Amino acid sequence: MAIISPSRRVRRTPFTPGVEAAGVKGYTVYNRMLLPTFFESVVADYHHLKNHVQVWDVACERQVQVRGPDAARLMQMLTPRDLTRMEVGQCYYVPMVDETGGMLNDPVAVKLAEDRFWISIADSDLLLWVKAVALGYRLDVLVDEPDVSPLAIQGPQADALMARVFGDEIRAVRFFRFGLFNFEGRMLPIARSGYSKQGGYEIYVEGGDIGMPLWDALFKAGEDLQVRAGCPNLIERIEGGLLSYGNDMTRDNTPHEAGLGKFCNTTSAIGCIGRDALLRVAKEGPVQQIRALAIEGDIAPCDRPWPLLAGGKKVGQVTSAARSPDYGTNVAIGMVRMTHWDPGTAVEVETPDGMRRAVVQEKFWI
Amino acid sequence: MAIISPSRRVRRTPFTPGVEAAGVKGYTVYNRMLLPTFFESVVADYHHLKNHVQVWDVACERQVQVRGPDAARLMQMLTPRDLTRMEVGQCYYVPMVDETGGMLNDPVAVKLAEDRFWISIADSDLLLWVKAVALGYRLDVLVDEPDVSPLAIQGPQADALMARVFGDEIRAVRFFRFGLFNFEGRMLPIARSGYSKQGGYEIYVEGGDIGMPLWDALFKAGEDLQVRAGCPNLIERIEGGLLSYGNDMTRDNTPHEAGLGKFCNTTSAIGCIGRDALLRVAKEGPVQQIRALAIEGDIAPCDRPWPLLAGGKKVGQVTSAARSPDYGTNVAIGMVRMTHWDPGTAVEVETPDGMRRAVVQEKFWI
Repeated sequence: MAIISPSRRVRRTPFTPGVEAAGVKGYTVYNRMLLPTFFESVVADYHHLKNHVQVWDVACERQVQVRGPDAARLMQMLTPRDLTRMEVGQCYYVPMVDETGGMLNDPVAVKLAEDRFWISIADSDLLLWVKAVALGYRLDVLVDEPDVSPLAIQGPQADALMARVFGDEIRAVRFFRFGLFNFEGRMLPIARSGYSKQGGYEIYVEGGDIGMPLWDALFKAGEDLQVRAGCPNLIERIEGGLLSYGNDMTRDNTPHEAGLGKFCNTTSAIGCIGRDALLRVAKEGPVQQIRALAIEGDIAPCDRPWPLLAGGKKVGQVTSAARSPDYGTNVAIGMVRMTHWDPGTAVEVETPDGMRRAVVQEKFWI
Repeated sequence: MAIISPSRRVRRTPFTPGVEAAGVKGYTVYNRMLLPTFFESVVADYHHLKNHVQVWDVACERQVQVRGPDAARLMQMLTPRDLTRMEVGQCYYVPMVDETGGMLNDPVAVKLAEDRFWISIADSDLLLWVKAVALGYRLDVLVDEPDVSPLAIQGPQADALMARVFGDEIRAVRFFRFGLFNFEGRMLPIARSGYSKQGGYEIYVEGGDIGMPLWDALFKAGEDLQVRAGCPNLIERIEGGLLSYGNDMTRDNTPHEAGLGKFCNTTSAIGCIGRDALLRVAKEGPVQQIRALAIEGDIAPCDRPWPLLAGGKKVGQVTSAARSPDYGTNVAIGMVRMTHWDPGTAVEVETPDGMRRAVVQEKFWI
């Protein structure tokens, strides 16, 4: 197992001192920033997440800030999801596509004002795309990366913990909505959202200086709730069908292939750069699509696409896989061709350790 | 020391099997791809690099391919360096900037034909910028990431090794020029270039399938030359003043601040998007600039900007630093304000382990 070498280019976050003190054992790099991958072990973290509450350093979900008179127009150019009814205070999951309908990112858009948005990004330098689109189309907007670092509170005890720090009003925040809450005199947007199916919040920490004070306040308030440092959990997110951009879909895929067709309003998202290309896909439907798969036997960590085979022919690939303690099988996410995507279809997975049997599932596990 | 967690998103390269077999001990992530950081140790690798020859997996230097009638026009829009006299067969080091003159990357441009270029990128998703510029300005070009993975051969024995595999004609390739050379029936562009001061080549391996055959051929041919797997060496590259985008300069910096003013032809690079902003800088000169610094005492790995202080005031920052065995000091790269950038100026560096004395150098060590 190779270590990750320190450098400024792989950015630390405002919460890294807390993450290190909590004994982080693994990292990945996400948007050129450190993202913890496990603390005790992926399995121990998984059980804890499902039973208690965790504080996650997801500062790597960087924000692309779009401000100005043309902000709403630019936002609609970026995504095939119709944003015309989006209200201030709402968060939208928005696939973002290029002119061919290829996915560039699958961020959450946060509407702070009629003329001000944050795009909370997955792992690609979407800032460069947004800046160049604004430039090329001569839009009256400012695009930058503000000093905002999300901190996620996830798990069944998330409400209890958050109410202690921010007051009971936090419980009224609805799913994919945000409110402004006070911490040490600063008003922070806090949304009911997060990259797990256990429920919880994402705090958009504006100003790195209050990162560790907030981290410490959460741990102090949650001692009897057994609060721990955590991170997006590989097993739990596969069980829940939470896609990972760069793993499960890339620029090569359309939102429809990623199973995100319901977020593509190709007849009403007027101005979207990829609309023409996606209109075609929306009519015909994709020829391959994301599916849940159960894989038998022992498997290695999935660090490259594993081909899916049927009768010796390639019919797709697996891109995320892990042993699930709760479901007693290997849970996996793959892209499967339409000839083999029906639930119950048996296929073979070519792993580095040999062939494994797999079955296409009707849906994800959670 | 935390490990780096495997996932498809952090891409393996065509050479990763060779890198693993050679016993890689550390990785960083560069352009969402694995980049080795050391094998035996950073110091042992350093001595070997300066005395023998190494094979480096630098596949993470991804290519942005620009093809079509408007290719040359688009290339000039991206950089303030005048490209009008660039010939087919030449490589140019080209700072690339946004409309404010902020650096987006510092790649090497490779001119394959009058209407076809590769941009061999440093660590940012420049592809997204180039694609959106082409789109916004309605240019007649195709922009994509081809299956090209650079492999660098570096060290004083690089010519000897390369001649054995590609023939003596390889010795005639001039600095920052490339020629096409045959390997197993495929013609590969090979340039005299690389991210060290020890001399050598970069092979643009087109087609991942021949990655390991080429890797194996080089090791077989170089056994008596003590060829080893290597990687960009932190100590050697600081000694040589080789900047690292994301470490030593970012989007916040102009090329002039990075000491790259000589690559900015702001009066003749007509069409460059950032020209107007840089014209101003070129007239006045920058107020801070990259400098070599020698730091006294023991230092930790530089994983965040270290403030440079003089009389209690911040006058810059250090972003790369390492102990140099050959020069008996800590060699470092920093951005220093003009009030303190003269050679011989004594400053203080605020490291996580305490203050250290440092002196601004006249030039880098090699």
